Amino acid sequence: MDQVNLKKMAEHLGLSISTVSRALRDSYEIGTKTKLKVKALAEEWNYMPNPYASSLRKQRTGNIALVVPEVANNFFAQAINGIEAIAQEKGYHVLIYLTHDDLEKEMEIARHLMSGRVDGIIMSLSGEANNTHHIKSLKEKGLPVILFDRVSETLGCSTVTTDDYAAGFKATEHLIKAGCKQISYLFISKHLYTAQKRMQGYKDALAKHGLPLNEKLILHCSTDNEKNQEPILKMLNSKNRPDGIFASVERLAIATYHACNTLKLKIPEKVKVVSFSNLEIASLLNPGLSTLAQPAFDMGKQAATLLFRQLEKKSGSNIAEKIVLKSELIQRESTGR
Amino acid sequence: MDQVNLKKMAEHLGLSISTVSRALRDSYEIGTKTKLKVKALAEEWNYMPNPYASSLRKQRTGNIALVVPEVANNFFAQAINGIEAIAQEKGYHVLIYLTHDDLEKEMEIARHLMSGRVDGIIMSLSGEANNTHHIKSLKEKGLPVILFDRVSETLGCSTVTTDDYAAGFKATEHLIKAGCKQISYLFISKHLYTAQKRMQGYKDALAKHGLPLNEKLILHCSTDNEKNQEPILKMLNSKNRPDGIFASVERLAIATYHACNTLKLKIPEKVKVVSFSNLEIASLLNPGLSTLAQPAFDMGKQAATLLFRQLEKKSGSNIAEKIVLKSELIQRESTGR
Repeated sequence: MDQVNLKKMAEHLGLSISTVSRALRDSYEIGTKTKLKVKALAEEWNYMPNPYASSLRKQRTGNIALVVPEVANNFFAQAINGIEAIAQEKGYHVLIYLTHDDLEKEMEIARHLMSGRVDGIIMSLSGEANNTHHIKSLKEKGLPVILFDRVSETLGCSTVTTDDYAAGFKATEHLIKAGCKQISYLFISKHLYTAQKRMQGYKDALAKHGLPLNEKLILHCSTDNEKNQEPILKMLNSKNRPDGIFASVERLAIATYHACNTLKLKIPEKVKVVSFSNLEIASLLNPGLSTLAQPAFDMGKQAATLLFRQLEKKSGSNIAEKIVLKSELIQRESTGR
Repeated sequence: MDQVNLKKMAEHLGLSISTVSRALRDSYEIGTKTKLKVKALAEEWNYMPNPYASSLRKQRTGNIALVVPEVANNFFAQAINGIEAIAQEKGYHVLIYLTHDDLEKEMEIARHLMSGRVDGIIMSLSGEANNTHHIKSLKEKGLPVILFDRVSETLGCSTVTTDDYAAGFKATEHLIKAGCKQISYLFISKHLYTAQKRMQGYKDALAKHGLPLNEKLILHCSTDNEKNQEPILKMLNSKNRPDGIFASVERLAIATYHACNTLKLKIPEKVKVVSFSNLEIASLLNPGLSTLAQPAFDMGKQAATLLFRQLEKKSGSNIAEKIVLKSELIQRESTGR
């Protein structure tokens, strides 16, 4: 028999070459039945993989980079665990880089990653990410970049997010149903697609329920949480103070709790609070915090899976995949459960 | 002039060769004045570094490994930030490896690190670390290993810890002064020097105040926090239940809060609680948790500084340095402030 190759196996089995290749690499995209069929033929025909592909494989660094704003945050900590779980299965190691929500630092890290220290990159953009040239450069260099949670829509990267619009709508509607008439939205970046989606959900929920949109209640906060006490205190001290607060990130809910303690404003009696948060001890807070919990561990796993799918392809993928997972609203005392 | 080398420069300046070498490498061990003098001469004499030394320098990976049990914990998250701050100054990158408190995983990571992927290692041992052969192997391979917080005394590694004995004593005495007569100590590993020290402080504080030691109140908990509800509930439900609990790690305080909620046992009225914890929102819990806060960020910085001091020496150091920082007792409502 002539030399066995993927093409001949594909023809024999009536499958595409890419299906055969992925079946041999045990890709999860391929069903078990197909995999068994392909592997049986490979054994029967004594198929040997192309040495060129092997040598390519040896050029890998065995590292992937994870670039995140912080780790002192349950969302990122859980996502890291998910990414690490997949990387370990693949025999890869995860280099974690922290941007501290600083665009300059993010750009410096990107420059560093250009040097070929890693095979691919998973990122959650810093809150100040109004410039994405550095990410474009990484992609042009041929490094696969997967974005999760804090994503940009203009980069053509595969992304893993939660249903930010629907969750923003749901959180706002939850406050409205709890009796709130003046609902404030707190966020840290207008550049992030994620934050924009959450805000759109907030606005549309107000509109649906006939509540006016008051721009003064949309508070653009700082990535440095210490700077957020003053504007939140000021808003809560004003004549038209909100009776409901929707925090788009966990640290803004924490800042709100501190501000309410300072002003002796009772939650939920005077102000109701709901927040995106994966805080494991949300129920132990005083009062228990109603949260939109993201499936952080699964998001990490999905992001890593997308990255390895690109790494296992012979050439980089030009198809941007979008995976959207659901957040869960968990009602606790802070919204007057 | 003959070829310029370090020896000639050292003779000319009346300095040791190692001082000249370190001055040229900008080591922090050398004063600014000496550095300027050495660099001026190097420029004047047009000194070119020895190619062998350069090639050695190129052999560095530029990575250090950080091996920790978890990141979803404020202590480790803050320590990582401290380590990263120093690594960044040195132009190094930090590869983070998670053991999930699993000794098998820790050993697997150690095997992986043997392959020369990093220049040095900073570790906090897993709670099950009753075997440290893998760490000895790393050291024998010539890789500097610095231990922090969860350390072993038998390895001859440099360590960064807090004053665990004094803090254990202080926490227990704080409960005694708050009126507790039956104080329980919760811990997760008897193998860790850290936990042993904390427990000794607990025992000695009881003895000093004439309180009997009740072994039933010393609870050996699991590294898997889900398994801790049952034994803590059982102890809190027993006839001789404790009126004070000293948790040696944060997650055990969280488990205690959940157990007290389940049993509707009021904190601090029925049970007072104090815990080692760097939880940033300890004051927002219901009730606010009294904590022994460790200077985690500084511990991370110190550990990284020790590591780079070893890396900058030509040969690995055989001197084990011990740095001990102070924990701070912060009294809140859980001990009846």
